[in-house]
Amino acid sequence: MGGNSFGKSLCITTFGESHGLAVGVVIDGCPAGLELSEADIQPELDRRKPGQSHLTSPRQEADCIQIFSGVFEGKTTGTPIMIMARNQDQRPQDYQDFQNCYRPGHADYSYDAKYGFRDWRGSGRSSARETLARVAAGAVAKKFLRQVAGIEVLSFVEQVCDIRSGLDPMRISRQEIDQSLVRCPDQVASAKMVALIEKVKAEGDSLGGVIRGVVTGLPAGLGEPVFDRLHSDLGRAMLSINAVKGFEIGSGFAGACLRGSEHNDEFYLDSAGVVKTRTNHAGGVLGGISTGEPLLFRVAFKPVATIAKEQRTINAAHESVTLKAAGRHDPCVLPRAVPIVDAMAALVVMDHWIRNLSARVR
Amino acid sequence: MGGNSFGKSLCITTFGESHGLAVGVVIDGCPAGLELSEADIQPELDRRKPGQSHLTSPRQEADCIQIFSGVFEGKTTGTPIMIMARNQDQRPQDYQDFQNCYRPGHADYSYDAKYGFRDWRGSGRSSARETLARVAAGAVAKKFLRQVAGIEVLSFVEQVCDIRSGLDPMRISRQEIDQSLVRCPDQVASAKMVALIEKVKAEGDSLGGVIRGVVTGLPAGLGEPVFDRLHSDLGRAMLSINAVKGFEIGSGFAGACLRGSEHNDEFYLDSAGVVKTRTNHAGGVLGGISTGEPLLFRVAFKPVATIAKEQRTINAAHESVTLKAAGRHDPCVLPRAVPIVDAMAALVVMDHWIRNLSARVR
Amino acid sequence: MGGNSFGKSLCITTFGESHGLAVGVVIDGCPAGLELSEADIQPELDRRKPGQSHLTSPRQEADCIQIFSGVFEGKTTGTPIMIMARNQDQRPQDYQDFQNCYRPGHADYSYDAKYGFRDWRGSGRSSARETLARVAAGAVAKKFLRQVAGIEVLSFVEQVCDIRSGLDPMRISRQEIDQSLVRCPDQVASAKMVALIEKVKAEGDSLGGVIRGVVTGLPAGLGEPVFDRLHSDLGRAMLSINAVKGFEIGSGFAGACLRGSEHNDEFYLDSAGVVKTRTNHAGGVLGGISTGEPLLFRVAFKPVATIAKEQRTINAAHESVTLKAAGRHDPCVLPRAVPIVDAMAALVVMDHWIRNLSARVR
Amino acid sequence: MGGNSFGKSLCITTFGESHGLAVGVVIDGCPAGLELSEADIQPELDRRKPGQSHLTSPRQEADCIQIFSGVFEGKTTGTPIMIMARNQDQRPQDYQDFQNCYRPGHADYSYDAKYGFRDWRGSGRSSARETLARVAAGAVAKKFLRQVAGIEVLSFVEQVCDIRSGLDPMRISRQEIDQSLVRCPDQVASAKMVALIEKVKAEGDSLGGVIRGVVTGLPAGLGEPVFDRLHSDLGRAMLSINAVKGFEIGSGFAGACLRGSEHNDEFYLDSAGVVKTRTNHAGGVLGGISTGEPLLFRVAFKPVATIAKEQRTINAAHESVTLKAAGRHDPCVLPRAVPIVDAMAALVVMDHWIRNLSARVR
Repeated sequence: MGGNSFGKSLCITTFGESHGLAVGVVIDGCPAGLELSEADIQPELDRRKPGQSHLTSPRQEADCIQIFSGVFEGKTTGTPIMIMARNQDQRPQDYQDFQNCYRPGHADYSYDAKYGFRDWRGSGRSSARETLARVAAGAVAKKFLRQVAGIEVLSFVEQVCDIRSGLDPMRISRQEIDQSLVRCPDQVASAKMVALIEKVKAEGDSLGGVIRGVVTGLPAGLGEPVFDRLHSDLGRAMLSINAVKGFEIGSGFAGACLRGSEHNDEFYLDSAGVVKTRTNHAGGVLGGISTGEPLLFRVAFKPVATIAKEQRTINAAHESVTLKAAGRHDPCVLPRAVPIVDAMAALVVMDHWIRNLSARVR
Repeated sequence: MGGNSFGKSLCITTFGESHGLAVGVVIDGCPAGLELSEADIQPELDRRKPGQSHLTSPRQEADCIQIFSGVFEGKTTGTPIMIMARNQDQRPQDYQDFQNCYRPGHADYSYDAKYGFRDWRGSGRSSARETLARVAAGAVAKKFLRQVAGIEVLSFVEQVCDIRSGLDPMRISRQEIDQSLVRCPDQVASAKMVALIEKVKAEGDSLGGVIRGVVTGLPAGLGEPVFDRLHSDLGRAMLSINAVKGFEIGSGFAGACLRGSEHNDEFYLDSAGVVKTRTNHAGGVLGGISTGEPLLFRVAFKPVATIAKEQRTINAAHESVTLKAAGRHDPCVLPRAVPIVDAMAALVVMDHWIRNLSARVR
Repeated sequence: MGGNSFGKSLCITTFGESHGLAVGVVIDGCPAGLELSEADIQPELDRRKPGQSHLTSPRQEADCIQIFSGVFEGKTTGTPIMIMARNQDQRPQDYQDFQNCYRPGHADYSYDAKYGFRDWRGSGRSSARETLARVAAGAVAKKFLRQVAGIEVLSFVEQVCDIRSGLDPMRISRQEIDQSLVRCPDQVASAKMVALIEKVKAEGDSLGGVIRGVVTGLPAGLGEPVFDRLHSDLGRAMLSINAVKGFEIGSGFAGACLRGSEHNDEFYLDSAGVVKTRTNHAGGVLGGISTGEPLLFRVAFKPVATIAKEQRTINAAHESVTLKAAGRHDPCVLPRAVPIVDAMAALVVMDHWIRNLSARVR
Repeated sequence: MGGNSFGKSLCITTFGESHGLAVGVVIDGCPAGLELSEADIQPELDRRKPGQSHLTSPRQEADCIQIFSGVFEGKTTGTPIMIMARNQDQRPQDYQDFQNCYRPGHADYSYDAKYGFRDWRGSGRSSARETLARVAAGAVAKKFLRQVAGIEVLSFVEQVCDIRSGLDPMRISRQEIDQSLVRCPDQVASAKMVALIEKVKAEGDSLGGVIRGVVTGLPAGLGEPVFDRLHSDLGRAMLSINAVKGFEIGSGFAGACLRGSEHNDEFYLDSAGVVKTRTNHAGGVLGGISTGEPLLFRVAFKPVATIAKEQRTINAAHESVTLKAAGRHDPCVLPRAVPIVDAMAALVVMDHWIRNLSARVR
């Protein structure tokens, strides 16, 4: 059974390889009547595409998407929405060194072990190029959430290696995020991150980091206990992104060090008569169901596996070899991963928004 | 759409409330021919049940399960396996204070917001009593994995509040784990943890912590990119356990601070001709597919929400109230959560083991 | 992957064997707030239970069900509803002749071929006793549909062997159906059917027939093209009932002989301004979506496989043997199958009613 | 929740509208290592495409498909296979009459009722043009079944209106089927069918009929009781094809008139030691599981809804109107539906072949 679909009421299926003909997605379950065009989607892809700055892979891809189905006269029809981008700047020759060689930290070996062989051109299906399809689908979900449900999704780079931003995630705008080359709205931290990435890139090495996500405007009630909790689906979504090794909701690992009396978020009624909590250690979810407080989560990315430094490994014939990667790679994926985190969060929230329509007899 | 099923090829559905008649599970998709009886399952439940020690809730539940279907002449038949335990020591009166009152950090409010009302007896469905059903199903998966696939699942308490064990997770036996009252095989740390839990219990407060999980004997090839990665399904499984706020695979959040050249696990061939890696920052998964190295993961639990200390909150009529919980609660759930982590890990691995049967034409 | 769940937004999972401890169902996805008690369910089971008349199996089973979870203070809570009946009148000894012998027309051989062995007591999981669980779940769906959506489900025996009723399916009440021993509201046909069943029972043989189903009060819009059409899900539901060999919606096989100009149902506006069709060859569905006209369908049942006449067959050792069934069997299942058809129809319609909530942006 | 996916272990998702940019399919779950190219797929599409003969719609579509992903160096990689054909001969103007008008027997009204509006160009998503995608996916399944499992799928036109072929379905070759303009291998019946279709076409009317399907080479053991029976999934697959109103497995509706002693298929051992049945009223399935005998089923198609004769109906403004269809339509869809029936049957059997891999511990 393949694993290329995500979501239950809103279900996306992605397809395509890094150096194949195209990468795309089919979105099934989007309600009819949502205004939608390529102009709603392309800007998100532009945030993800390579070649944005000197800090990202120089591969030249316009990532120019087209809607092939499911939209008529500017509105979704309730039928599957297929969105696809053709691959353009393919240089499979860059990858011939990896053809019979297992890059440390990469999926070369595990794909071979599972499938018997693999499309080695640009890492094939295991390339982060697949996330283009997620960003396209996520743009549809973001539009829906904003327009129909008043929900906003935002994420930004909070940490690159050990450089951390201390900004309050509730006080950040998309504009501030995109003004930073590394999508860190903290200008001081951003400058340090840029410098570190430049340095490490020059060394042929790579960096990891942490992205913070925030979802606001959520009603209380989203999430389906006991397995499809809002944050367990969100965690799965994030952990399905290339290079992600950790996920936290609310207090996360730090919360493990608090006492109950410190961690519990006290309920109160705000002046508008809305139930609120004074703190948000929960990260917006209790019992797997949204409380109406903002969703707050963090996503840890390991450093990029493909590096230009020499490494020892083995090849498909099980001989010891050394490897020094050519190819066009990001020294740090986090700036380009921000729209991917956005997209996956939006898809999860929209799925649960739809599922919640039938929570009770009305 | 309800969220009470978990798994694709192996699918479990749990049911039951804390103070209802019973808690149970239906397991669908377990292959026929596995030897199985209550004796394979009960020991896992005994590790989870309340009243094990002075550190856990004193609720008296034998958690005595019975197999109602799917087993004939001592073997699974390929039909659904229903396993159930009747609730016995119900004291709903202990919970009447919470009936109209939203405990901080608990699911009372979010359930009301979603469903319009809730079964308030012992937290109803949101009680960790539901995990009894998971442990029962997980015991079946553990038996299958051991017997059919040679795979072992093990987990233990690595941290309570800020007390950490530094033991190498690869050198720990189940026996060592269960010899500790808190299921921490590090005797020094264990003693400190016990003392801290006793102290905090006396204060009417509660503690969180971290459980480490280890899965060994895994073949390379388990996991279905791009969404049903082995570790994204594992993360979702863990995040669906009550009180869990974070999940890491391999290097996790700490890995975000490493460089690629430090993080990448070098491949080599061991003396038996098996592909291995010299380190295991990946935690046993590359590209969402197992490498054959042990799965290593960590799960963060927040402190128990229900505490005996006085807290301010609101009630269902939206009035400000103060609350001091009676009822029988664990000051720290981690010792009893170990078999739950085991169970969810086993269910995920067995599901993917089955799914992998059709990875390629043979 | 097991096949014991049915439905997407409303999902049921059944468990249990004919002579095991119990038969039951977990219903996941029923909205909270529906009034529900055993009294809503038991009457449907009483229509299905054995021993109703001299025409049915004399097995003595009260089929007395109990709700184990998901209902609190008389209302559904939105959590899984588990309903179960204990088996009581077990006589596995009646089946020992079949233990190593493949009854013609029965599932003995195919279960052995698939699973390697089988629970031979009373046909185990392949017994129609499993449908008890469906009827229980269907009773919940019927209650929901009536109370929340104004939809009624009705079915009756239209044919036993070659005796046919010609009544207009739109002019029949449940009372008229249940007044007939064979659940055929056409008194003349009913009397003939009873006589034929008595005769064939005396001969040790068995009969098949056809059940007609009618669903009224349906809004236009239910059904999800292109695969989850309302009638393709309905057909699957019916074909999953023991002994069913055929399904028709609307004109069915007879419609294959009409011309387009005869078959097309002309649209008009009734005096209340509602869109109607002058005929209903479509059976209430166009393009897989309900039109608002009644759903009309027919379900063909083969004659019962287990008969008292001597038959030749083989045994598990692949020797030729002759077989003459003891045990307690119905000579014709149709009278008891009526509530099963009702139940499956109700489950399909409720599932699609929920799914349709998100058809469009509102 | 959309309904555009089909299958569990092998899952297809189709997209596209009749006069949109393209129609295509994503296949997820096809094992890696199957040799596959466009040349395996195009011939099946050529059997479905319009303009094959004077009996079919004259729309000029090459239906030239391309594989966009999931195949590398001539073999499937285990990743999603996307196959798509661009629409070419679009004439939406032909459909402007239907833009605001509900054709009797067509999905215009029900789509509007569900989604609030519809893509009216060539019936949009409700057009049988969508089945192009199914045929493409089915060609992959047919290749797999033949090559990996030794299973063959075949179907042919058995009846057009009241003209019936009496040929033994077990003695028919694909060549004989394709030699007939109407895909009826009975030459006498075929000639009559051709003549009748010509006559009815001249009258501006349309015809229905019945397709017979045969699957041979099946092992015993495919099918998952109790809901995912082999024939209930097969029935659902057929009922999801445009214009299908009925489905029978084995004896079907005629079987309802037989006695048990007539209907039961006696088991015996053939000279090769294989378990066989002397008759095949069951149609190859007992208890929802294949017996190893050929699958035999029949599918009833209503006459095409869009006809050139004048009909009364209403428009979107709910006014009475008369309608006479222009556009390019088939007077009888059956000849072109044969590859669609083939495709859906192959997809169901392959899905169950994969699912059966885990039926028991081996």
